[in-house]
Amino acid sequence: MRKAYFDHIAATPLHPEALQAMLPYLGEIYGNPQSLHSAGQQALAAVDEAREEVAGLIGAGREEIYFTASGSEANNLAIKGLAQAYQAKGKHIVVSAIEHLSVLNPVKSLEKLGFSSTTVPVDGTGLIDPADVEKAIRKDTILVSVMTANSEVGTVEPVAEIARVCRARNVLFHTDAVAAAGSIPLNVRDLDVDALSLAGDQFYGPKGSAALFLKKGTRIVPLVEGGIQEGGRRAGTENVAAIVGLGKAAAIARAGMEARTARAIPLRDLLIEELLRRVDHVVLTGHQTRRLPHHASFCIEFVEGEGMLLFLDMQGISASSGSACTSKALKASHVLLAMGLDHALAQGSLVFSLIDGMGREDVEYLLDAFPPVIERLRKMSPLYTRYLKERNDALQR
Amino acid sequence: MRKAYFDHIAATPLHPEALQAMLPYLGEIYGNPQSLHSAGQQALAAVDEAREEVAGLIGAGREEIYFTASGSEANNLAIKGLAQAYQAKGKHIVVSAIEHLSVLNPVKSLEKLGFSSTTVPVDGTGLIDPADVEKAIRKDTILVSVMTANSEVGTVEPVAEIARVCRARNVLFHTDAVAAAGSIPLNVRDLDVDALSLAGDQFYGPKGSAALFLKKGTRIVPLVEGGIQEGGRRAGTENVAAIVGLGKAAAIARAGMEARTARAIPLRDLLIEELLRRVDHVVLTGHQTRRLPHHASFCIEFVEGEGMLLFLDMQGISASSGSACTSKALKASHVLLAMGLDHALAQGSLVFSLIDGMGREDVEYLLDAFPPVIERLRKMSPLYTRYLKERNDALQR
Repeated sequence: MRKAYFDHIAATPLHPEALQAMLPYLGEIYGNPQSLHSAGQQALAAVDEAREEVAGLIGAGREEIYFTASGSEANNLAIKGLAQAYQAKGKHIVVSAIEHLSVLNPVKSLEKLGFSSTTVPVDGTGLIDPADVEKAIRKDTILVSVMTANSEVGTVEPVAEIARVCRARNVLFHTDAVAAAGSIPLNVRDLDVDALSLAGDQFYGPKGSAALFLKKGTRIVPLVEGGIQEGGRRAGTENVAAIVGLGKAAAIARAGMEARTARAIPLRDLLIEELLRRVDHVVLTGHQTRRLPHHASFCIEFVEGEGMLLFLDMQGISASSGSACTSKALKASHVLLAMGLDHALAQGSLVFSLIDGMGREDVEYLLDAFPPVIERLRKMSPLYTRYLKERNDALQR
Repeated sequence: MRKAYFDHIAATPLHPEALQAMLPYLGEIYGNPQSLHSAGQQALAAVDEAREEVAGLIGAGREEIYFTASGSEANNLAIKGLAQAYQAKGKHIVVSAIEHLSVLNPVKSLEKLGFSSTTVPVDGTGLIDPADVEKAIRKDTILVSVMTANSEVGTVEPVAEIARVCRARNVLFHTDAVAAAGSIPLNVRDLDVDALSLAGDQFYGPKGSAALFLKKGTRIVPLVEGGIQEGGRRAGTENVAAIVGLGKAAAIARAGMEARTARAIPLRDLLIEELLRRVDHVVLTGHQTRRLPHHASFCIEFVEGEGMLLFLDMQGISASSGSACTSKALKASHVLLAMGLDHALAQGSLVFSLIDGMGREDVEYLLDAFPPVIERLRKMSPLYTRYLKERNDALQR
């Protein structure tokens, strides 16, 4: 059976060059980077080089990159760590309604410790209005966290504008760039953010590799305490191979971003245009133009995400109905609900996200396979049967 | 130059079979285990199998294993997570004086949140007396954490006895088994512990692979929140390859432990005996018999750890002067000070820890290289010069 993996947002394959870069650190170079002997120093040099490459991807300084094991960990560290470090200044946090749960849940936990939060809404395309962020900032606000791009609907947020608002009000700004970093150009100086999360498995680096950018001079309370690794801000023996893979992936992403984007956009647009043309009762979710280059997302009426995923899987097509971190919970996505979609429509969420190297034939394969899948599923849907009956009745009247 | 890596306690090399097991998950099997499609389910199956193997190493149930990225993270999760989950019952914690900083520092952080702690002493061999733990337990004690074995001095603690004390007093017991798991037999049912930390890079698994065992029914507050991974107790996309490597390493460790131990002990004993015979002013640190099979540790008078490490490194010998997590801090080890060693002697700490596959010739190489290194260093030592002069004066009197 033909295979077509349209699930970039869940995890990208590891780039073969990143794997090649990692292999020595899964083999003969096994020292602990904190060891004083050459075996350790060799590992440390690799970690340092990777730090430089990750910094380069986002225009940061090497000393501003803190490696973590996941984007979720980077987000937790940013939210809990900054809130705790700056709580003497105030205990109020601003987030958007469509943040990842690794931002929202830490905020909830902080509320148990006396913090409070304001949630900024989004419009129907998932866009956040910087003016709403400004309105939400209070005298005791210490931190704003708004994502760079949303993985479920692909919308790219006006991060620079939000950062400007925060800077003017002297409030720290963190952006969860896990879905965006490596896919769209990001420069922490131009954006003027204080903290930024990224994850390697979103740009062809290894799983287990991620980082938090933290602007020089910013304080943070560590999540994992103990050893002196990562400047004492994240204890634990460095996952040297994963870090090296992240560094390599960052270098590749940086060098090839323009070409990759140029390959992705026409395929994405073909997918969106044709899917909307070939299937009834489908809406595009997220913003039409301000969206990730590899990202196409929809809500399909009268069907449920899980059913579509399983039927597509039988055709060799991997897709997603939202964030992999919550997909099995099978609740309607908080992102789609915040965008004003009704509950039933939100159940039919579907994301096709492209992997670099895919061609037009992969998209065509999907476009051919998709309408019959929907037809089959709708035949089994009581909601669709009722809709057809009602339409029929209306026509006969 | 000949190479001899005597730094098991900093990190072991990755077992070639563990690497082989990992490679598919750094290649064609790149799905996210939380994805519903086959690509994800394939990854999930591998994670589940690894969970089973890690559970098997310590006699646990599969559902009691929570993967983390490091032993430090497992310790942080245990200490902060259990304390927060059970704080309604009390806010007092008992630890030993020689715990790893990834246990001690979280306890310090909890003290800022209103918790208090009692530190149990150790004797001159690094042994903890269960009676001292019993004495330290108060009415409001909710958690005791005592390590299974200490990586700096090799001493293996009476964990089962301490667990019995805790059970009788209805207090949770966590043991940091990072230095011990995979090297000595551990069974969480026989030991009757509630939580246990282990790390793959201490038994020929990959860096970035570790786990917390948590007895079924035990509550815990997660450190990394967000997604539904690890039963909601540790969010973040699973590092599938590292987890698979950990599982394989656990299976290998379990199957080969007896033979490995039988190979290690005579070499360790040769190393200890001959080193004490060939160099003056050296003491063995830790317990003579209750020690890790691969572990030989000493304090060498009139020299400093760093100098020894660098001179040994020039002979191709990798060793350690204590925990890699703190080695660069170059402070006298809290472990050695707690054992009653004086500050000057503690500066001369040195650990030689064996890697499986080493032979008698490696130990002989070390034993031949070591005395000249010490001689050279002592020639540069003002303390040693003073000692010689004083001894000379005394002899002439």
